[in-house]
Amino acid sequence: MEKIFRVNMTDLTTSVEEVPQNWLGLGGRGLTSTIVAAEVDPMCHALGDGNKLVFAPGLLSGTAAANSGRMSCGAKSPLTGGIKESNVGGTTAQLFAKMGIKALIIEGLPQEDKFYSLDVTMNGVTIAEETELLGKGNFAVIEAMEAKYDKKVGVMSIGPVGEAKMTAANISVKDPDSKIRSHGRGGLGAVMGSKKIKYITVNPEGSGRVAIADPDKFKAASRVFAKTLMDHPVAGEGLPTFGTNILVNILNEAGGLPTRNFTDGSWDKHDKISGETMHDTIVERGGKTKHGCHKGCLIQCSQVYNDKDGNYLTSGFEYETIWGMGADCLVDDLDQIAQADSIMDDIGIDSIETVVMFGVAMEAGILPFGDGAGILRLLREEIGKATPLGRILGCGTASVGNAYGVTRVPVVKNQGIPAYDPRSVKGIGITYATSTMGADHTAGYTIATNILNVGGFVDPLKKEGQVELSRNLQIASAAIDSTGMCIFIAFPALDIPECLPALIDMLNARFGIELTGDDVTELGKSILKTEHAFNLAAGLNNKHDRLPEFFKEPVLPHNAVWDFSDEEIDAFWDF
Amino acid sequence: MEKIFRVNMTDLTTSVEEVPQNWLGLGGRGLTSTIVAAEVDPMCHALGDGNKLVFAPGLLSGTAAANSGRMSCGAKSPLTGGIKESNVGGTTAQLFAKMGIKALIIEGLPQEDKFYSLDVTMNGVTIAEETELLGKGNFAVIEAMEAKYDKKVGVMSIGPVGEAKMTAANISVKDPDSKIRSHGRGGLGAVMGSKKIKYITVNPEGSGRVAIADPDKFKAASRVFAKTLMDHPVAGEGLPTFGTNILVNILNEAGGLPTRNFTDGSWDKHDKISGETMHDTIVERGGKTKHGCHKGCLIQCSQVYNDKDGNYLTSGFEYETIWGMGADCLVDDLDQIAQADSIMDDIGIDSIETVVMFGVAMEAGILPFGDGAGILRLLREEIGKATPLGRILGCGTASVGNAYGVTRVPVVKNQGIPAYDPRSVKGIGITYATSTMGADHTAGYTIATNILNVGGFVDPLKKEGQVELSRNLQIASAAIDSTGMCIFIAFPALDIPECLPALIDMLNARFGIELTGDDVTELGKSILKTEHAFNLAAGLNNKHDRLPEFFKEPVLPHNAVWDFSDEEIDAFWDF
Repeated sequence: MEKIFRVNMTDLTTSVEEVPQNWLGLGGRGLTSTIVAAEVDPMCHALGDGNKLVFAPGLLSGTAAANSGRMSCGAKSPLTGGIKESNVGGTTAQLFAKMGIKALIIEGLPQEDKFYSLDVTMNGVTIAEETELLGKGNFAVIEAMEAKYDKKVGVMSIGPVGEAKMTAANISVKDPDSKIRSHGRGGLGAVMGSKKIKYITVNPEGSGRVAIADPDKFKAASRVFAKTLMDHPVAGEGLPTFGTNILVNILNEAGGLPTRNFTDGSWDKHDKISGETMHDTIVERGGKTKHGCHKGCLIQCSQVYNDKDGNYLTSGFEYETIWGMGADCLVDDLDQIAQADSIMDDIGIDSIETVVMFGVAMEAGILPFGDGAGILRLLREEIGKATPLGRILGCGTASVGNAYGVTRVPVVKNQGIPAYDPRSVKGIGITYATSTMGADHTAGYTIATNILNVGGFVDPLKKEGQVELSRNLQIASAAIDSTGMCIFIAFPALDIPECLPALIDMLNARFGIELTGDDVTELGKSILKTEHAFNLAAGLNNKHDRLPEFFKEPVLPHNAVWDFSDEEIDAFWDF
Repeated sequence: MEKIFRVNMTDLTTSVEEVPQNWLGLGGRGLTSTIVAAEVDPMCHALGDGNKLVFAPGLLSGTAAANSGRMSCGAKSPLTGGIKESNVGGTTAQLFAKMGIKALIIEGLPQEDKFYSLDVTMNGVTIAEETELLGKGNFAVIEAMEAKYDKKVGVMSIGPVGEAKMTAANISVKDPDSKIRSHGRGGLGAVMGSKKIKYITVNPEGSGRVAIADPDKFKAASRVFAKTLMDHPVAGEGLPTFGTNILVNILNEAGGLPTRNFTDGSWDKHDKISGETMHDTIVERGGKTKHGCHKGCLIQCSQVYNDKDGNYLTSGFEYETIWGMGADCLVDDLDQIAQADSIMDDIGIDSIETVVMFGVAMEAGILPFGDGAGILRLLREEIGKATPLGRILGCGTASVGNAYGVTRVPVVKNQGIPAYDPRSVKGIGITYATSTMGADHTAGYTIATNILNVGGFVDPLKKEGQVELSRNLQIASAAIDSTGMCIFIAFPALDIPECLPALIDMLNARFGIELTGDDVTELGKSILKTEHAFNLAAGLNNKHDRLPEFFKEPVLPHNAVWDFSDEEIDAFWDF
């Protein structure tokens, strides 16, 4: 039987509870958002004792289903002021699922000015005071925990950025190679920092397999599902070969690659940072072009990127990070970007928020455009040390804009806009505007249909069909984010008829239930509505479903502008 | 005939326009809020080219009516995100009125990275590039302008804080003694800085008297009105003798003196900073206990506060500033507070926002509680020099809270809560919560009736009657803020039956109209509704009409908590 593990940091007590009936069918984002909506006052201070940090593995996590090892983390976001779910690979989702942990809920704030660690075992959670690792980076935490326990230990930790409660702080999660994946967006590391938890270890001793109600059906469906992943040109070929960074050249070609803090739509140096260049560099230096963020991943969009001497530099080196420090900050040195990626993992800061922020910091004159060495220095010496400048930067894009009076600040609901110009790829603009998460490409990844011709084609430069596209993808993503599946399964799900039925068959075989496709759609809708209701109760409203004013300026090469009316955007919520 | 003077900073042109019919009956706040609502997109960036900065003298400014020399300044606030009006004494309201300038509207943003000055004469406005005074304080600007023109020149300027567009920047205005008064709240200095205007001079050559339709009636009403001011114990005696700082002991006694960043309601060292102590110190050092912020002021709540050697240190030394650096920051040295007041005037930052901010900065550990020398250093070396720390501090209370992850952040709509604990003086809490201006005691000064027994008595510790009290006072204040009258005329207006009719008689005699008391009430309501509609369109809603969570904690000595329900607060807008 699955359980809810609960930790109260105010009185330093823990408990193991039955799963309430109405949470039984939920997992991942569906569960974290339901718990946050049920237990957190939307008007509370996100870093105060009313907020709760919730971890939940997906419904299929821990099973043999391909790409099902994603863990969701939810809370009220100190960055957006609304609800937040951020999911990640690594090992914790699978460990939790095998240990029968439906969710871990952390509430309250310690009364003393001390930091703590949590250790999660089959018996529950124990709390210990932590002093030694304070101020240390996430790599040091993982190393120390593997030394203390063993290689199998799961680790979720915050770096100095989270300890200092900066609102771009993320939560780092150990991956199968003892490297780092992140609950990146929305400042969840600051929430963990406010609760004064430096790290959480997960020790699975005594755990078994995830129970499957109908193993034969599961196995059959799982095979079909896996085949659709491998058969799809993006999931089975593009992503494994070039990683997500395959998108640099594609978006540049489409004129949707935001350049120099969103003042241009393409960059003449795109080749320097492209997926193709990266692939060749990796091969040349003896790295790995394919790599999974969690066990059982077939897409393998990650990689191992080595430095010039062939030593490991970083992995999980994503398009959005490379775009941001590259095109948006005009840094044309992939090695510098890889170094920054590694530092961001170590100090514990969202790499998307941070690269978007640096574009604004450059516009503010804090450092010149193109100054990659300056970014490395600011990450290490200012943000990583929580200096005043570091705090301005470490609180993200909007924070820098506010402190320096910049008006070109690409954020929605205070969260940085990533990697795809909403003027030239209008569907993603609708996602940025309306997502309950603030600007978040993964919330409804219209790039699939606007740019990659997956699931048909909706012309990225025209308004027609974008709201419907974004709505359908946001509903589907909310459901997928509840299964523990990687969002990239959406590619085959949109194109290959057998994919989605196989996914539903796996869910049904796992739990002995009879979900239909409509049920899954209803689940997605219900999650979005729960999140939207939370946000409205927190003071966000349709005026916050808007892109910044500066997107009315035309952007090259298409002279595209953001031209949706308020009514057109608000129609998103008509479902 | 009165005119609208308009300046377009984008193309550096100016014009003189007829006053539109529907603006003819408006002045001060009524006019600035009407113009902002009519011409500014509520969703624009407050520091972008869509915002406008509007100055308008009150309806009675420039006449012989006592206390009528207040100038309103309005814009979308970069601090609150809503509409803002901030009014001030000094000389500009009377100069504008005598020059026939109904309003000065400044729009657009310069295309080049240069600063400018404006010179306002009877003929219109001229724009000149400014280089010499950049980075200089407001006292230097006034000195330079008096040297360039003469003693009669009116000056409105920003200091380095406004140049750097920090959101607590104010606009300084020369007073009759060539000292400084401020359009203090809401970051209007940042708007002026965004438009790259270092200062505005007002040269009245050729101006005449304000036309009075019925001089005899005006003179008679004016005499009655003046007598009511002098006859009232607060306006005629308390304020002239002790200044607004008479309130330290009164609020301390009432348990409503927020202490140590709002963790206590009284302070054992209140005597060190009280109005009585200040009065004796002023007398001892040969300063002035009475002083007006503008010509024709009968209340004379200002003063000249000298240093130990008898040299001028500051004037316009207000309760809210003294409370904040005193009780809220635990600085018990009135001379240090006076020095801070002078520095804040010089660098151009709202002294209320700044002292509230320092309470949070002390809680954040940036400097210890009680460290007055630290405050002086941070004002001069960090805020005045726009360092990164200075920018965090100079963007106000919420900015520090955000950068340092503090949860005890006394703000409403991002603006710092002044000087009166809303738990122990509940009426003012309703004003803080509901005012269109963000937390602003002057928007509906319930202290009159909650504490000073003016206009009756409503028990400050009980909820009964507070919403109605605040509503009535906010409506009245909006109307008074349109006349050019100082808000302190509310004291006799509430207590002495002849006061308000005399005020209305003056308005009628000035314009040859037939306003009734009901008309004035309707004007106040209409202004509030115009402002509220702007705020709603800017994305603020009733969830922003709330006090911070921490006010649920009880505060000594009454163990008072903030206990209004959402419905009770929202009922404010039922009119």
